[in-house]
Amino acid sequence: MAKELTSREENYSQWYNDLVIKADLAENSAVRGSMVIKPYGFAIWEKMQAALDKMFKETGHENAYFPLFIPKSFFAREAAHVEGFAKECAVVTHYRLKNDGKGGVEVDETAKLEEELIVRPTSETIIWDTYKKWIQSYRDLPLLINQWANVVRWEMRTRLFLRTAEFLWQEGHTAHETRDEAVKEAELILDIYADFAEKWIGVPVLKGVKTPSERFAGAVETYCIEALMQDGKALQAGTSHFLGQNFAKAFDVKYLTKENKLEYVWASSWGVSTRLIGALIMAHSDDNGLVLPPKLAPIQVVIVPIFRKPEQLEEISQKAQTIMDELKAKGISVKYDDRDTFKPGYKFAEWELKGVPVRLAIGPRDMENGTVEAARRDTLEKETLSMEDIAVKIEHLLENIQDNIYQKALSFRDANTFNVDTWDEFKERIEKGGFVWAHWDGTDETEEKIKEETKATIRLIPIDGKQEEGVCIYTGKPSKQRVVFAKAY
Amino acid sequence: MAKELTSREENYSQWYNDLVIKADLAENSAVRGSMVIKPYGFAIWEKMQAALDKMFKETGHENAYFPLFIPKSFFAREAAHVEGFAKECAVVTHYRLKNDGKGGVEVDETAKLEEELIVRPTSETIIWDTYKKWIQSYRDLPLLINQWANVVRWEMRTRLFLRTAEFLWQEGHTAHETRDEAVKEAELILDIYADFAEKWIGVPVLKGVKTPSERFAGAVETYCIEALMQDGKALQAGTSHFLGQNFAKAFDVKYLTKENKLEYVWASSWGVSTRLIGALIMAHSDDNGLVLPPKLAPIQVVIVPIFRKPEQLEEISQKAQTIMDELKAKGISVKYDDRDTFKPGYKFAEWELKGVPVRLAIGPRDMENGTVEAARRDTLEKETLSMEDIAVKIEHLLENIQDNIYQKALSFRDANTFNVDTWDEFKERIEKGGFVWAHWDGTDETEEKIKEETKATIRLIPIDGKQEEGVCIYTGKPSKQRVVFAKAY
Repeated sequence: MAKELTSREENYSQWYNDLVIKADLAENSAVRGSMVIKPYGFAIWEKMQAALDKMFKETGHENAYFPLFIPKSFFAREAAHVEGFAKECAVVTHYRLKNDGKGGVEVDETAKLEEELIVRPTSETIIWDTYKKWIQSYRDLPLLINQWANVVRWEMRTRLFLRTAEFLWQEGHTAHETRDEAVKEAELILDIYADFAEKWIGVPVLKGVKTPSERFAGAVETYCIEALMQDGKALQAGTSHFLGQNFAKAFDVKYLTKENKLEYVWASSWGVSTRLIGALIMAHSDDNGLVLPPKLAPIQVVIVPIFRKPEQLEEISQKAQTIMDELKAKGISVKYDDRDTFKPGYKFAEWELKGVPVRLAIGPRDMENGTVEAARRDTLEKETLSMEDIAVKIEHLLENIQDNIYQKALSFRDANTFNVDTWDEFKERIEKGGFVWAHWDGTDETEEKIKEETKATIRLIPIDGKQEEGVCIYTGKPSKQRVVFAKAY
Repeated sequence: MAKELTSREENYSQWYNDLVIKADLAENSAVRGSMVIKPYGFAIWEKMQAALDKMFKETGHENAYFPLFIPKSFFAREAAHVEGFAKECAVVTHYRLKNDGKGGVEVDETAKLEEELIVRPTSETIIWDTYKKWIQSYRDLPLLINQWANVVRWEMRTRLFLRTAEFLWQEGHTAHETRDEAVKEAELILDIYADFAEKWIGVPVLKGVKTPSERFAGAVETYCIEALMQDGKALQAGTSHFLGQNFAKAFDVKYLTKENKLEYVWASSWGVSTRLIGALIMAHSDDNGLVLPPKLAPIQVVIVPIFRKPEQLEEISQKAQTIMDELKAKGISVKYDDRDTFKPGYKFAEWELKGVPVRLAIGPRDMENGTVEAARRDTLEKETLSMEDIAVKIEHLLENIQDNIYQKALSFRDANTFNVDTWDEFKERIEKGGFVWAHWDGTDETEEKIKEETKATIRLIPIDGKQEEGVCIYTGKPSKQRVVFAKAY
């Protein structure tokens, strides 16, 4: 193969980094912690955006855009929020550069801002400051708004897609009349996120709520979806927060009820980010490269001609064109790789590396027989297909692949999910990876101690989890429900 | 009307501001110079994005994403570029806040960056630093990349959409083997921009190149489109730059030619921004509110029921549902305004303010006669339509409106375009507004003096402009082609 990957077994972390770079998804930039998302990686993000945006709009949400900069003082308004976010912010202090007289530029000290501006790490504060102007009465509610934006959180240890100083995301911010409506909204979005993860990314997820110590800074309840990666580590793939009246109180946002009383507004906020691309990569890919779910693959089908003489290529190209027209008519994206600078074997390896779900090869014998050879990326199996109804066959094949990679990921998760009842078993199990369902006494202290001793965190308390009597694996105190532990990204 | 606008005649500038606010397009934020784009305004931007993105992709461009922050030193690499942009940049100097002990937060002075980061005002420098890694040989070219992003230019005097500290835009950055290819790319994009302006926004534009003094900082040639607003002022609606080898040299980006020689790469860059929304508003709207071109209207048709009794509403709603289904099947966006809290007259005024191209009213008499009343926003004319083939009729009406607002804007521009040959006439004409075609001696000095004395700038030197002998209106020196002067936004 042209560009060899480290194998997962050898070094999973290195395999991931190699894959992101070699499949042309993203790379590190000259700015510490900020990545460049390359066209192939960005095309995946565009497909994610389109699917999610449609789901948000179908459930009544509208997009808007709020400022990148947030006045420093806004952060101090909500006590828990500032505690959680102020630590890792990019701060704008000046608004002009000047020549330094040595051919370079330097900050113009005379252009210092009176109040520093924070580059948004999340937008609750600037948005709730705006909502104060938009919300007067119950007629203005609910307010269901989303924005697609870049945010910055100053991370010391970064990894492409999984944790970067700047990342792209969507953040929804909604305002409601009642507590119940805001909770329902947070839950609705959690369902949308779970649906998207399972039906589009092909990754099964657990749904639950975070423990108090893992909650979003400023939230009353944080809902989340958690997925299991191939190395047995969990990845938080999306969060949805019920914010209570915390931000309404911090920014003094009240509304006139139907009964003519002034009440604070109830809120939710929720987001998923380019981190989802990291989840997609780690959930399905193998030692040959990416395995992309067909629904999110920038190129769903690649056609490679096999030929010796130019006349052969010409004939094959005509057939390829017919296939492409039929596929495109069904909305299937297809690329014809007729580069004459590379041999078929090189091309096969390249498209495997890039995770294209279906590869069609057409050679002289296929021309004679009226066939094509179809190779599916997920299983690497090949089959010879007659040209009859070729587009229908490919369409089914893509659906089959989409379903298969989900089932495979589900089987993997099932095989790596364990009920554990003793501390010794817990320590051993956690070390090997996977989701560990265990009883916990419900205290921050125990959670913290388990984390210190094993590096495992409580990923979530399952929604609608089975109620059963048990005892905390760490303290032996009583517990009524298992929670899910794992080491996590 | 519910929300009264200042008239254009009374105060054009105030009319514009009122309109942006009252039609719920955007508003000023708590951050000086940064706007909040409200859902209705953002929906217009989304439609613009979708149309442009399609045009870019159809011509072989791909999207990617580059970092928001640019190391300060990058700016100094290209001399003209830093001269043009360093003056108005937001500078990040620190990466942490801490508690100030008084309930607030303050900048943590121990978290000072070694090298300050600039919030991108445009991305040539960070992108060309990246291209250095991507381009080795002619096989890597052309590189045709676009990004949709936010940028920040610290403006002292801001106006919603037209000039804001932060704005949204797309910026294309391409790399080519030859000078000719890069020039062709810049021209191709200019044509795309002009097409978009005319066919989507409904605004006729002049195409041309900027004079040296008005060129993009770092460009060899700046192409632009210029539109005329209703107050007789010009608005630059898009620019496309041929960058020569300036950035390739500044960032040392060379490629191996087919002849095995190392050569610097040739470049273009180009962009349009949320400023286009300002152009859209100012080109067509009137004293009743927005007039939106159907192709970019978030809501193309609104249906208002006219009723006294609940039974009537129920009947009308059924009919409205039928119409909506038929319109949606044709891809026409439609809203049914059955709010019972407002009277029809209020609703009519509101949808006029919001510029919805077609308003349908259905009353009891329409129910009897099998008709609807259609009012078009551009001319405010009403007609009674039979229900037969209603969707086809509405579709034609929308096309007709799209065409009509363009023709109206074109007539306005024609009526406000003047050939002028003397300095006295020039001064008088410029004062009244419009595009003034006049001879200029081609020097920076004359251009500058004309600007000082009249506030008019040379908007462009027309592409394929008629060659004719003439003398400069200011100096009397010889000139071979008229250029276009105007006062501008």
